[in-house]
Amino acid sequence: MRIVAVNERTIPLSAASRNASISFDAMTASAIAIVTDASDGGKPLTGIGFDSVGRYGHGALLRERFIPRLLAADPGDYADGDGGIDPEKVWAVAMRNEKPGGHGERSGAIGLIDAAAFDLAAKRKGLPLWAYLAERYQRPAVNVIDIYASGGHYRTDDDIGHLRADIHKAITRGHRRFKIKIGGIALGEDIRRIEAVLSMLEDGMTLAVDGNGTFSRDTAFAYAEALSGLPLAWIEEPVHPLDYDLHRDMAERFPSPIATGENLFSADDARNLLRYGGLRADRDILQFDISLSYGIVEYRRILDIMSDHGWSRAQCAPHAGHLLAFNVVAGFGLGCAETAIDENGLFGKLTSAVPVGDGRATLSDRAGAGLETSPAFSEIFSGVLQ
Amino acid sequence: MRIVAVNERTIPLSAASRNASISFDAMTASAIAIVTDASDGGKPLTGIGFDSVGRYGHGALLRERFIPRLLAADPGDYADGDGGIDPEKVWAVAMRNEKPGGHGERSGAIGLIDAAAFDLAAKRKGLPLWAYLAERYQRPAVNVIDIYASGGHYRTDDDIGHLRADIHKAITRGHRRFKIKIGGIALGEDIRRIEAVLSMLEDGMTLAVDGNGTFSRDTAFAYAEALSGLPLAWIEEPVHPLDYDLHRDMAERFPSPIATGENLFSADDARNLLRYGGLRADRDILQFDISLSYGIVEYRRILDIMSDHGWSRAQCAPHAGHLLAFNVVAGFGLGCAETAIDENGLFGKLTSAVPVGDGRATLSDRAGAGLETSPAFSEIFSGVLQ
Repeated sequence: MRIVAVNERTIPLSAASRNASISFDAMTASAIAIVTDASDGGKPLTGIGFDSVGRYGHGALLRERFIPRLLAADPGDYADGDGGIDPEKVWAVAMRNEKPGGHGERSGAIGLIDAAAFDLAAKRKGLPLWAYLAERYQRPAVNVIDIYASGGHYRTDDDIGHLRADIHKAITRGHRRFKIKIGGIALGEDIRRIEAVLSMLEDGMTLAVDGNGTFSRDTAFAYAEALSGLPLAWIEEPVHPLDYDLHRDMAERFPSPIATGENLFSADDARNLLRYGGLRADRDILQFDISLSYGIVEYRRILDIMSDHGWSRAQCAPHAGHLLAFNVVAGFGLGCAETAIDENGLFGKLTSAVPVGDGRATLSDRAGAGLETSPAFSEIFSGVLQ
Repeated sequence: MRIVAVNERTIPLSAASRNASISFDAMTASAIAIVTDASDGGKPLTGIGFDSVGRYGHGALLRERFIPRLLAADPGDYADGDGGIDPEKVWAVAMRNEKPGGHGERSGAIGLIDAAAFDLAAKRKGLPLWAYLAERYQRPAVNVIDIYASGGHYRTDDDIGHLRADIHKAITRGHRRFKIKIGGIALGEDIRRIEAVLSMLEDGMTLAVDGNGTFSRDTAFAYAEALSGLPLAWIEEPVHPLDYDLHRDMAERFPSPIATGENLFSADDARNLLRYGGLRADRDILQFDISLSYGIVEYRRILDIMSDHGWSRAQCAPHAGHLLAFNVVAGFGLGCAETAIDENGLFGKLTSAVPVGDGRATLSDRAGAGLETSPAFSEIFSGVLQ
């Protein structure tokens, strides 16, 4: 099987909301399709992938470096020995002549190629991606996963009213775990937002909060202190993602679970977090973003490093990454997957095709990662599919 | 003053040589020009910059994200209050709405904008960049710097003969410090290469060796052991740039100076190296690449972090970076700058306009970074200058 084209489309993501770190007005994300010379019911067999949102699309880098490298490769270099393509070999071809280190941007471009290659390989086997991963890497095949609903961005008008309405709606839809932003307003106001949500939760429901890595040491400690009396599932990215000493200081001082990792983009960086960050394997949460961190091939290396450091896969809650992450959570037996409180936003649309009940999602039996089941699919992938 | 255009041209760098890490056959680098509406003798006042070579050009990322952001900015946001542009403000505009972490690719694109903005600001003041930096950041103005000549790549035909001829020629040109590759052949053969060069050196001349970050733990220890009896200036990148524990283990076991840092691209990563790498401020060498690490604005942050950790600027030998690095070594009082053994390669051409004598280079008094003094200038910058 030969890869005959790799198409990318950059999707502008206009949104009125913001988090503590950046404005999303100019944010973009990439949709990618790997097109082969094999046939899939009369059409070319094609694997597709969609970005994990938050670090801009990767179209320019893909077109400049990685797509030409893939198209120039000998198809024998990525053949699976059974007439198909091997995603791990596609990955290795795309990373040829890349130096060690420098894990940003490139990691997202490669992650898109990885996602589309795995989607394609699963489709060729007629398996949903979660089952393909379980079979290939000898894990139990499970199609039901724990999920949490993420959102709670700040609104200028009746912020707490909107927040409560959002949570109420998500509960009605079957969600039981929630996460909202912190750090965009004064600490006291954030506490009121948190208490407003906590007061709505029923037995067994949980709430986490997300600081987006922007707090200074003093602010982080003030938040940790103020939040320590509240029953929170975790405090996410309280401090800068690469300040491992500060993670350690937080973990030594405060018992609340810390979640972090979504802004580290490689096994190298994951290893350093585990070596130096002082995180606690009995409670803390690791959120490395699969798509933005060189994809499933690299995520397996991260899982190996976690295992070397005594961490269970149950502590993994990959950042966003929609249906790709859902499949990996199922296929690799991870803790839980992130979905959106707002089912009408892009991230929500990409996951809302998955039935939710009692805080869990049931994955489709459709072959591949299932992006085609998203209502947003035809719009997003117009232009990349032939 | 308004930035009216930012032009980039991607230069293919064909070379038959290789290092231990990657093939350079498809390597590229970017030339950039920031064009303003101010006049410079009838032409638009323009700042230019050229990539530090080794991590591919940055044209696609510049065009996708950073150039549009700069051109869309209010000129008041980067005004210096004196009718010019402030490179630090240009930097801040280019980095708007960028998340923390993910230091790769982006860091090189921003480094090019930084370089061109500093070149432009120095030109407007009528100062060479080294003098502009010294004046702006209150350092002694010095136009003579220590340099070393880097090369010694492997050749398939008469490798040692070519190597000796290269070193001989460089000595004749006035060089006194040299660096050659290791790790591309068996250890015993590398020792023979090193001894061949050492036997040519006169009193006061030095030789360093460069492993390009590819050795396993065992190989790195074997090299360190075998090289410990030889009078080497440093062993460069013996191990993976992000494996800080392994750096520490190397530094604990072997007295030879270690040089590293060229594949870490931010102040965040530099800080982690200094926190966890066990490096020795009395002998080890820090080689963060200025251009690939977000430029001069970020390099100043790195120098502050070094100072916090008890390191002298004399331990800095920035990776490559040609005339930009020369100016920063002079303007900030760093240890030494890297130039090329091979004056006919691109890197050599970009630095060979600078007079060399007794292991030192004398920088030009021409306004700006001096790229225009390079014989390769007109060819490289055709297409980016208006």
